[in-house]
Amino acid sequence: MDSLRVNGERLWRSLMELARIGATPKGGVKRLALTETDRQGRDRFVAWAHEAGLETRVDAIGNIFAVRSGTQAGEPPVVMGSHLDSQPSGGKFDGAYGVLAGLEVVRALNDADIRTRTPLEVAAWTNEEGSRFTPTMMGSGVFVGAHPLEQVLAQKDLDGVSVQQALQNIGYAGTASPHAVGAYFEAHIEQGPVLESTRTTIGVVQGALGQRWFDVIVTGQDSHAGPTPMETRKDALLAASRLVVEVNRIATTFPDYARGTVGQMQVKPNSRNVVPGEVRMSTEFRSANDATLSSMVAEYRRAAKTIEAACRVAVDIREVVYFPPSHFAPELVGSVRDAAQALGLPHRDIVSGAGHDAVYLSRVAPTAMIFVPCEGGISHNEIESATKEDLTAGCNVLLHAVLARAGVARQ
Amino acid sequence: MDSLRVNGERLWRSLMELARIGATPKGGVKRLALTETDRQGRDRFVAWAHEAGLETRVDAIGNIFAVRSGTQAGEPPVVMGSHLDSQPSGGKFDGAYGVLAGLEVVRALNDADIRTRTPLEVAAWTNEEGSRFTPTMMGSGVFVGAHPLEQVLAQKDLDGVSVQQALQNIGYAGTASPHAVGAYFEAHIEQGPVLESTRTTIGVVQGALGQRWFDVIVTGQDSHAGPTPMETRKDALLAASRLVVEVNRIATTFPDYARGTVGQMQVKPNSRNVVPGEVRMSTEFRSANDATLSSMVAEYRRAAKTIEAACRVAVDIREVVYFPPSHFAPELVGSVRDAAQALGLPHRDIVSGAGHDAVYLSRVAPTAMIFVPCEGGISHNEIESATKEDLTAGCNVLLHAVLARAGVARQ
Repeated sequence: MDSLRVNGERLWRSLMELARIGATPKGGVKRLALTETDRQGRDRFVAWAHEAGLETRVDAIGNIFAVRSGTQAGEPPVVMGSHLDSQPSGGKFDGAYGVLAGLEVVRALNDADIRTRTPLEVAAWTNEEGSRFTPTMMGSGVFVGAHPLEQVLAQKDLDGVSVQQALQNIGYAGTASPHAVGAYFEAHIEQGPVLESTRTTIGVVQGALGQRWFDVIVTGQDSHAGPTPMETRKDALLAASRLVVEVNRIATTFPDYARGTVGQMQVKPNSRNVVPGEVRMSTEFRSANDATLSSMVAEYRRAAKTIEAACRVAVDIREVVYFPPSHFAPELVGSVRDAAQALGLPHRDIVSGAGHDAVYLSRVAPTAMIFVPCEGGISHNEIESATKEDLTAGCNVLLHAVLARAGVARQ
Repeated sequence: MDSLRVNGERLWRSLMELARIGATPKGGVKRLALTETDRQGRDRFVAWAHEAGLETRVDAIGNIFAVRSGTQAGEPPVVMGSHLDSQPSGGKFDGAYGVLAGLEVVRALNDADIRTRTPLEVAAWTNEEGSRFTPTMMGSGVFVGAHPLEQVLAQKDLDGVSVQQALQNIGYAGTASPHAVGAYFEAHIEQGPVLESTRTTIGVVQGALGQRWFDVIVTGQDSHAGPTPMETRKDALLAASRLVVEVNRIATTFPDYARGTVGQMQVKPNSRNVVPGEVRMSTEFRSANDATLSSMVAEYRRAAKTIEAACRVAVDIREVVYFPPSHFAPELVGSVRDAAQALGLPHRDIVSGAGHDAVYLSRVAPTAMIFVPCEGGISHNEIESATKEDLTAGCNVLLHAVLARAGVARQ
């Protein structure tokens, strides 16, 4: 059993075939959730699942579950999955890899004529990206009860099409009822630079960073840059800039994978020779530790008070999103590490900075993720790239971690 | 002669009557250069000048000169003036005050039956604001030879109308040839907070700050805010923010009325959870001393080098505008100070942070400016406000400074 391996060539061929659906000129993929191209991608996956002998079910939010029965009746399945939708200028691997790696595990077990005790499932979650419909991680979020189904079905895209209509249009408004999950594994490209820069093949994911997002408004007063002396200005951009510097200072001095980012900024009136009177900006903090995250936010609010006084402005900080850190199941994380070890693959513990369907699944089932490197850490971009060797290695780790959990039935 | 005063009520009535031409609902003025409302304002001024016994001439760029002859033949005139055009949401006093204060000086001399040795002129310079046609200070710039006439006449507004056409449309394409100026005085609201906050009635303007304007591009690399560790980021907004902080530090630590402003900033891709890869921003420095201005710029470039290395980004700083500081004529500045003193008005030396027609005139003639307070230092805004008392006081200073220069003829 230890010598069992997936077929890396077949995995790669499937990834490349799927990537032709919604292919972009620059080598990427545009497969927005619940569009015609998403339907084609789903149909392709369902056809492959049927060829592999799996039975497929679709639930009311369009999540697809491809089931391989186990030998032990009534056991909740070990689920492998991710998503088939992409960003508007997405890559070939984000999401698709996790789904097709699950399919390849099943195919490899079929080839070797191995049955597991508990059932296996390959899941394709609806609209992880959130590019067409908000919120992100929609399918897994509804599945675990984080969002009410009716509310999510009523969400509309920019053209006024609801999730409900879009599901019906592509024929993926299903009826499967929610079911228990015995364990959840998600293989994914890292979407960051750590594995590549440390020449590591397998990231053993400990959990996902907590996130706190804020809308910030800095209100000063606009005035003429020429006649207004420095000491009487109420420069909103100076205050905003000092906040950006503080966000960076906080994120680089706090522990637990602390991160802090200002990604958005609008300046008013945004005229070359007018001292800016208002700045609207985003701020987000992330950390693997919820207490650390709270301390970072408290420190940010303290810094804002100081800056308010120093720059004679008002700073309004309003929280808009809060995801607590998720901690994956130690026994599953351990089985991922053991599998990487047994396969002789360079591996390291890592945390996920981004959200994934696994973050929601971890609320209802023991969960683990497996990361593989992507070129330059670049994702959500048509130039997203990963090697056949690394993807194969990650899939072999998935195979053995899943077998450890699902158990091999006596022949 | 020392007891001679202007008629403050008449000055105020004229200002209010002119402000009805292009009046806005919020109490301001919209009289864009060379439009129909500008024509009406010009016609009003010309009619008043004729009523006061002045002869008017218009040159090829539309500058209006209203001449009161002196008793001494061949002397170049003492000119008082400013502009009649406004910003799109301008106020009642910016520009209009300088022209009508000049007119009121003439009216007061008429009332007292006083003739001067050298001729007097009231000038209304074309398109000081530059809102419809660039460059700003167009009429005075052409008058002193800073811009070639043909080039400026060919400038077009957003609708494709040239300066030449617009001048012909409103009947102000004149033929007067350039003439020598014996001295130039411009009364103006301060457009800044210094006089009001120090309870000073008269600003004795020493000159205008030099200005150096830059376009700055910060190039980093955009990456996902979640998976990208702080230590590998190339955050263009962090670098830009540190530049803003440096601009402020430099402007607050250098002497000679140093000012530094970042008024414009655009962030790319400007997405909440993406580390910004590019920022485009403006930077401008001002100072009364050209050597100080150079040192400020050198310090900025040094700081940019440090920030480039610290933030792993590239900073491109390109100069787009340079006005050297202008120093007004000590003897005229002295006569303004003497007049304020003799009139018992609180006064202080001040520099002009903004550009004015006087800045160009100072290239060809001894020049001085008289500032009066404006409410809250606010200008280029419909709520721009100044008191009848302060405007009258400034006009009396103008009267006596002009008389000191032009000389009173023996009766």
